[in-house]
Amino acid sequence: MTDDPVIGFGIDAIREAAKRLAGRAVRTPLLNSPMLDDLVGGRVLVKAECLQLTGSFKVRGALNALLALDEDARRGGIVTYSAGNHGQAVAAAARLADCPAVVVMPRDAPRIKVDNCRWWGAETVFYDPGTEDREEVTGKILQARGMTLIPPFEDPRVMAGQGTVGLEIAEQARELGLAPDTVLVNCSGGGLASGVITALNHEFEGLANHIVEPAGFDKMARSLAIGRVCANPRPPGGVMDAISGPVAGARPLAVLSRHDVTGLTVTDEEALAAVAVAHRLLKIVVEPGAAASLAALLVGKADVRGRTVALVASGGNVDPAVYRRAVSD
Amino acid sequence: MTDDPVIGFGIDAIREAAKRLAGRAVRTPLLNSPMLDDLVGGRVLVKAECLQLTGSFKVRGALNALLALDEDARRGGIVTYSAGNHGQAVAAAARLADCPAVVVMPRDAPRIKVDNCRWWGAETVFYDPGTEDREEVTGKILQARGMTLIPPFEDPRVMAGQGTVGLEIAEQARELGLAPDTVLVNCSGGGLASGVITALNHEFEGLANHIVEPAGFDKMARSLAIGRVCANPRPPGGVMDAISGPVAGARPLAVLSRHDVTGLTVTDEEALAAVAVAHRLLKIVVEPGAAASLAALLVGKADVRGRTVALVASGGNVDPAVYRRAVSD
Repeated sequence: MTDDPVIGFGIDAIREAAKRLAGRAVRTPLLNSPMLDDLVGGRVLVKAECLQLTGSFKVRGALNALLALDEDARRGGIVTYSAGNHGQAVAAAARLADCPAVVVMPRDAPRIKVDNCRWWGAETVFYDPGTEDREEVTGKILQARGMTLIPPFEDPRVMAGQGTVGLEIAEQARELGLAPDTVLVNCSGGGLASGVITALNHEFEGLANHIVEPAGFDKMARSLAIGRVCANPRPPGGVMDAISGPVAGARPLAVLSRHDVTGLTVTDEEALAAVAVAHRLLKIVVEPGAAASLAALLVGKADVRGRTVALVASGGNVDPAVYRRAVSD
Repeated sequence: MTDDPVIGFGIDAIREAAKRLAGRAVRTPLLNSPMLDDLVGGRVLVKAECLQLTGSFKVRGALNALLALDEDARRGGIVTYSAGNHGQAVAAAARLADCPAVVVMPRDAPRIKVDNCRWWGAETVFYDPGTEDREEVTGKILQARGMTLIPPFEDPRVMAGQGTVGLEIAEQARELGLAPDTVLVNCSGGGLASGVITALNHEFEGLANHIVEPAGFDKMARSLAIGRVCANPRPPGGVMDAISGPVAGARPLAVLSRHDVTGLTVTDEEALAAVAVAHRLLKIVVEPGAAASLAALLVGKADVRGRTVALVASGGNVDPAVYRRAVSD
């Protein structure tokens, strides 16, 4: 597949992103555990993006989008309205590129998220989720200050940045003498899933592609089924906040539609059990939404016996109480 | 320093070990966290040996010692009497080299440790710690079956295997354009400390060398002070079981004596706080004894302001209850 001229996204954009991120984003390890392989009956390669700067893959997309701006726009600075992993990623990207950043957050955002954004040097602007609209608040900042919005997934440069995860999986698997035949990616807006699935299907033939979402909140699988963007009926409200955004991305949907993609879902309990397995066998700290793919493997929702599976442990920013609940005796 | 002809250990032995382990042991990542750097005021490079096969660095030494045996001895198999990380490492090394292994364990060893050794294919032999001597039990097996003992640290090949951690730190730091000027290593028998300090002092000039032990149980620091092997007065009995062995190794002591090494100690509470920092900022699962060096940094026992520090997060096999205690709100 060459780059789509309308979306402005494809393998070439991902390769360009890889060049921009080299020496800036962390080339996270591709982990393997013989005991995990034994549990699922296949070879499992875990891309540990929890070890990425800011504790999630999100900094790849934010930094690629930022570095692709012209000098003037870059100096003007960037804005986002995510309080979660993307917000911290935007803050970190701005610091790495030495430009200003604003993160728009609900007034009741967890203290740790506010502190993290500020630690990276971003300004935090609060809105009242009861009376104000975050996009309106963000829009005013964009206009007044001449800044650029970096959306969490609905942007070809962001998608390309996330796709570098897939390129690295391909390189690192080859270094181990392996070729994945199956890929599972945690999915919310679809930035990571569209990037990784594009990169890996370019590098390997005949891949079985899976996206994994919270049970009952599989907006992207439903979007793929009917061919247009779906929203979740309401926020899932469980432990998988990293993949609980309200709506699937139109551009990610367009990209995923070109591949044969199977949607899987996992419950909160299944995700927590996978967090515990990552703790015990891989020794990495994974947040529940980032453990969804591993959960799908562990409960046999994808049959990977005899197969070589790549998946992304996409982040590790987890509430201590949730983690303690996962890691029981 | 060239290899000591009496001890049979030095930089050449470590380099030979690196060749033997290539493609077998994991080249674990050297992690960095800007937030951690900010906390201690220096640049901290964390060698994540918790991501090593079996969840600790120990497999390096065991595998190097095993692969250095001649064909006959290797086929005869290996034995050890450690129920902890070294026991699992011997079991894994034997499986990687396709030879038999026996792990001698106290009858009351935790189930998980027994299961892990068996999973790797080792035979487990139990003794009654109240009435039997583990070395006597082990000796009988060695004689009766013609097997080879792989001790946890008192062996130049084991020390050389652990030293490959230091060689990799040097390579990986250089890839980042950095040169460590300070090193901290968790220390019990001294296999890891002697290996890493030998390797790093060969690669970099004027290093400040530190070993870190449990407070009140600093057998190696006392051994270094008086120039002969000391034992701990009793087992520490706290959470740092990974560095709570009864006695310092004579060969490791001889090697460490040639360097200017400062002994530091940390308490259980300091180690648990470091486990939490590794969880929150590095997203790796570290056991308390393997977090001792990080703990020493965090409480300012080594002043590393403006310095570039290498340390080893040496293992991640931690009891879930202990981990939950560490990871509080």
